[in-house]
Amino acid sequence: MEYEKILEDIAEDVLGGPPEGAVADYISELARVDPDKFGMSLYCLEDDAIYAIGDSEERFSIQSISKVLALTLALSIDNEEIWERVDVEPSGDPFNSLVQLEYEEGIPRNPLINPGAIVVADMLISRLESPKQALLEFVQSLSGLDDIGFNETVASSEADTGHRNFALANLLKAFGNIDNDVDEVLDFYFHMCSIEMSCSELAQTFAYLANHGRTSGRTGRIITKTQTKRVNAIMQTCGFYDEAGEFTFRVGLPGKSGVGGGIVAIHPQEYSVAVWSPRLNEKGNSHLGMRALELLTSRTGSSIF
Amino acid sequence: MEYEKILEDIAEDVLGGPPEGAVADYISELARVDPDKFGMSLYCLEDDAIYAIGDSEERFSIQSISKVLALTLALSIDNEEIWERVDVEPSGDPFNSLVQLEYEEGIPRNPLINPGAIVVADMLISRLESPKQALLEFVQSLSGLDDIGFNETVASSEADTGHRNFALANLLKAFGNIDNDVDEVLDFYFHMCSIEMSCSELAQTFAYLANHGRTSGRTGRIITKTQTKRVNAIMQTCGFYDEAGEFTFRVGLPGKSGVGGGIVAIHPQEYSVAVWSPRLNEKGNSHLGMRALELLTSRTGSSIF
Amino acid sequence: MEYEKILEDIAEDVLGGPPEGAVADYISELARVDPDKFGMSLYCLEDDAIYAIGDSEERFSIQSISKVLALTLALSIDNEEIWERVDVEPSGDPFNSLVQLEYEEGIPRNPLINPGAIVVADMLISRLESPKQALLEFVQSLSGLDDIGFNETVASSEADTGHRNFALANLLKAFGNIDNDVDEVLDFYFHMCSIEMSCSELAQTFAYLANHGRTSGRTGRIITKTQTKRVNAIMQTCGFYDEAGEFTFRVGLPGKSGVGGGIVAIHPQEYSVAVWSPRLNEKGNSHLGMRALELLTSRTGSSIF
Amino acid sequence: MEYEKILEDIAEDVLGGPPEGAVADYISELARVDPDKFGMSLYCLEDDAIYAIGDSEERFSIQSISKVLALTLALSIDNEEIWERVDVEPSGDPFNSLVQLEYEEGIPRNPLINPGAIVVADMLISRLESPKQALLEFVQSLSGLDDIGFNETVASSEADTGHRNFALANLLKAFGNIDNDVDEVLDFYFHMCSIEMSCSELAQTFAYLANHGRTSGRTGRIITKTQTKRVNAIMQTCGFYDEAGEFTFRVGLPGKSGVGGGIVAIHPQEYSVAVWSPRLNEKGNSHLGMRALELLTSRTGSSIF
Repeated sequence: MEYEKILEDIAEDVLGGPPEGAVADYISELARVDPDKFGMSLYCLEDDAIYAIGDSEERFSIQSISKVLALTLALSIDNEEIWERVDVEPSGDPFNSLVQLEYEEGIPRNPLINPGAIVVADMLISRLESPKQALLEFVQSLSGLDDIGFNETVASSEADTGHRNFALANLLKAFGNIDNDVDEVLDFYFHMCSIEMSCSELAQTFAYLANHGRTSGRTGRIITKTQTKRVNAIMQTCGFYDEAGEFTFRVGLPGKSGVGGGIVAIHPQEYSVAVWSPRLNEKGNSHLGMRALELLTSRTGSSIF
Repeated sequence: MEYEKILEDIAEDVLGGPPEGAVADYISELARVDPDKFGMSLYCLEDDAIYAIGDSEERFSIQSISKVLALTLALSIDNEEIWERVDVEPSGDPFNSLVQLEYEEGIPRNPLINPGAIVVADMLISRLESPKQALLEFVQSLSGLDDIGFNETVASSEADTGHRNFALANLLKAFGNIDNDVDEVLDFYFHMCSIEMSCSELAQTFAYLANHGRTSGRTGRIITKTQTKRVNAIMQTCGFYDEAGEFTFRVGLPGKSGVGGGIVAIHPQEYSVAVWSPRLNEKGNSHLGMRALELLTSRTGSSIF
Repeated sequence: MEYEKILEDIAEDVLGGPPEGAVADYISELARVDPDKFGMSLYCLEDDAIYAIGDSEERFSIQSISKVLALTLALSIDNEEIWERVDVEPSGDPFNSLVQLEYEEGIPRNPLINPGAIVVADMLISRLESPKQALLEFVQSLSGLDDIGFNETVASSEADTGHRNFALANLLKAFGNIDNDVDEVLDFYFHMCSIEMSCSELAQTFAYLANHGRTSGRTGRIITKTQTKRVNAIMQTCGFYDEAGEFTFRVGLPGKSGVGGGIVAIHPQEYSVAVWSPRLNEKGNSHLGMRALELLTSRTGSSIF
Repeated sequence: MEYEKILEDIAEDVLGGPPEGAVADYISELARVDPDKFGMSLYCLEDDAIYAIGDSEERFSIQSISKVLALTLALSIDNEEIWERVDVEPSGDPFNSLVQLEYEEGIPRNPLINPGAIVVADMLISRLESPKQALLEFVQSLSGLDDIGFNETVASSEADTGHRNFALANLLKAFGNIDNDVDEVLDFYFHMCSIEMSCSELAQTFAYLANHGRTSGRTGRIITKTQTKRVNAIMQTCGFYDEAGEFTFRVGLPGKSGVGGGIVAIHPQEYSVAVWSPRLNEKGNSHLGMRALELLTSRTGSSIF
């Protein structure tokens, strides 16, 4: 009800202005997406219901949003190892990613930047028999859906153009922070990023972060309350590339964006929300997505500040 | 009541363990402080009352906590200029401070790291006739006290040992981001850091950040609601040197620490809190201060995550 | 004669002291070498003769010395392209290799550091039909020998451990400064480094750099006089990792070292010289090799300073 | 004779083309210099005579050329200390100067870059009673002139604009590699750079580097043969900011340039040479000065490569 009206107002507002920003075009599959798509879905804990608007049921490439899922899966397996291999602090600008990795001797600043997520991927490969299958099953258990899958074309395109990721992974390997074969790790990493979901599916999937680590469905506890707090805290300080401070100010919720134009955000104990609009601002985050979430927290008074 | 009991429990808990960490000793005035001091004060918005425990009325050197006050004063004068000269994003590790400044051509990452606060100081000098006097009056108006002052011995000791700050200020000047004389800017900056306040005075002073920019007293609005949100967001992502992520996780509130062992934190619409314990952890933040605030948000359920 | 005596004196001197330094052990083939090997050979232009001592006829892995040969081959094909893709200035410390590459947007500082040699390898692959075969034939034409070859075990061991080189090559590729497949480029690069030659063969092979670009044999001109000057100048300023200044001071000749323990040096118009001793100093250059060359230039008065 | 003709040819050649490059203008005294000045002087060891052409007797600001004189004076006092505080290796690009200093914990890469020369200045202040007077007397003893002096206007202008040097000096101080007051050290450093000499005076002054450390006059030995070799080696690898490799290739002699448009170069056992032309190329070295020296070594066949 309330949320229905709020989402309608948001959609009207954000779709009213002239289009800004550009679709990611470093791989052709992402470039082909209709730039004017806009969808938004909010899962309300109290109502146990999804409120949605626009292209909320259309799947898109979740890209870096998957880093939160991979981290959660890793935490659910072993809470210790990952924090010995990855830090939890924000990083500086992207230029410094290789510099910092070099200076900090192969320990990535946090698990939501590429080198950190690559280490998480490596750990999952070591711990799981069929890591790709296991990750899909994990996402399926969170979402209650059984047809979540990888986009193989996207995954292989990422592999063709991801030279900087190969550079990072090899540097990590040189520092001894990658156990498996670099190609295998990155194959898994690129597949992870190629998962496709809709806004409503994402809102449902990420509900556990609003709910102390429990899904709303029959799956129950995914990670502990403390682990959930940790994941949310990392999203708050590190979820938006070089715009974490800006997002924290404007939206005031922990969240994570992807270059496919998706963003998920969490209001602990209240809701999980996902928004999709493929045009990105110059920092690589969805232009309208950020605007929509800013309006959401303004209108619901739910910013934490 | 409730807070009274909570503070008592916290004090008992944190004072029960063996002492950890060491007092900052790079200037003798700080080194001379009794390392076992512990005070904590919480200003509750609803009650318009201060709850305090321990050495809560003893003044100490607030050091970098003053950066928030200087930023607030600058915002109250002009909301635009500072954001043209300083960014709002977290920085990486301390090693990178000069590197980042160099790469980003003299634009500090945020106003709570030293180079950012030095630019804020420069702006205040340009805008105010007697900047030191004006800053004291501003803090006095926030706190309702008229005897807040600088510790001249601390200020001049900082000047004697602050070579890295002179390096930063001169690099900023080389990039054209300091208008005034470097010595004058740093003299003001070191004075700013030498302000002495007690926990209760700090809790009272920072109440405006919990109250949409308004003091509880007769002074009224200091900065706008949006500016307040901005300051809180910056504290959330950048307030703890290289431990912002850890503080966000453990405490889950925007805050700012100083090497004097003080920390202030804000629960918007609820309370402002200050804690003091001079022993610092290896990242330079008060060991027991962090622990005390973690206990506070655990027991009140007031973490944002 | 004169040189014969000088080499004898040098051998006596360097072999008299206690062994210092350690053999490179990052791949097992290099680690297996007898650390006490010592050989030295000098090709005198005037006499058109080789003077040699010790294990001067035993082949070893020339490693980075091959970078000079690859650069020469590239120059003999096209003098322009390589200087558009690689600079000619010394680099700072090894830590900065990735940093500098990042800052200078994929243009390596010079062709004798790894990223520069990788770009040279890429260019050779683009220009030559069978680059490995062509490189061997080129070296054979310089040396007058037809049995120079790669050590496949060394090459594949390098590939297994060369994560930092994969990082560099992928970063170069991300900046568009590698045209071919990274694996193919590094396969060629690792083969290049695996060439095995003896001191006498190296002295003969590098004679062209002492002789304005001409071999002593029937092959004739390899590169122009100006190109020869360029190669020598680059060896002078960049030939010894982070010890170029020290080598320039102690030996005073352009030269290039390899982690196999070999060093070649050139006295233009006078001689080319090669020395081999597998124990490396902490900067990665042959400990006795540097000492032997220092004695050579001291005794012949042939340092340029 | 021979040199007379060669200098005439060089002057004709370099002055024949259209002017290129721009005079340093960061301080007004340098900007006021006539950009078309050109002078060149060569001191021939064998003849004990100076050959000169053009504006060879007009004094100009020697700027960074003075770093070699300060280093020599420091070596003549104590050969050990300086090498504990400064390295002898080339540095990378200028961007990295602060980065490298930070990473290498306050040890400058070499004594001919600004941080290295600042450390040399600090050492001279500690060792000499009246360092400014002592430096002038030292230069007077090398040159045989008694009216060499500082340009106070230049020195104080440098102090007004040298923010980056203040940044470097304070960072060095923070690392404990400056013993004296930063302002005092930089005052000496800026005075050192403000010395004014003519080409002929420079050629005479630097004769000791061509003569194993001995002046041609009655002063005799300045530094040892080994120290001389060290200074020349450092000039060879580090004397030209980010163009050391290019100068080594084109000229092939150890040398040092200054932003006043002067360059000195040394052919050990043969000659010392100074050239002056104020227009600088984009790397900050005299455009015609480099051309003139390139012609000199081409025509005399005296390049070392």
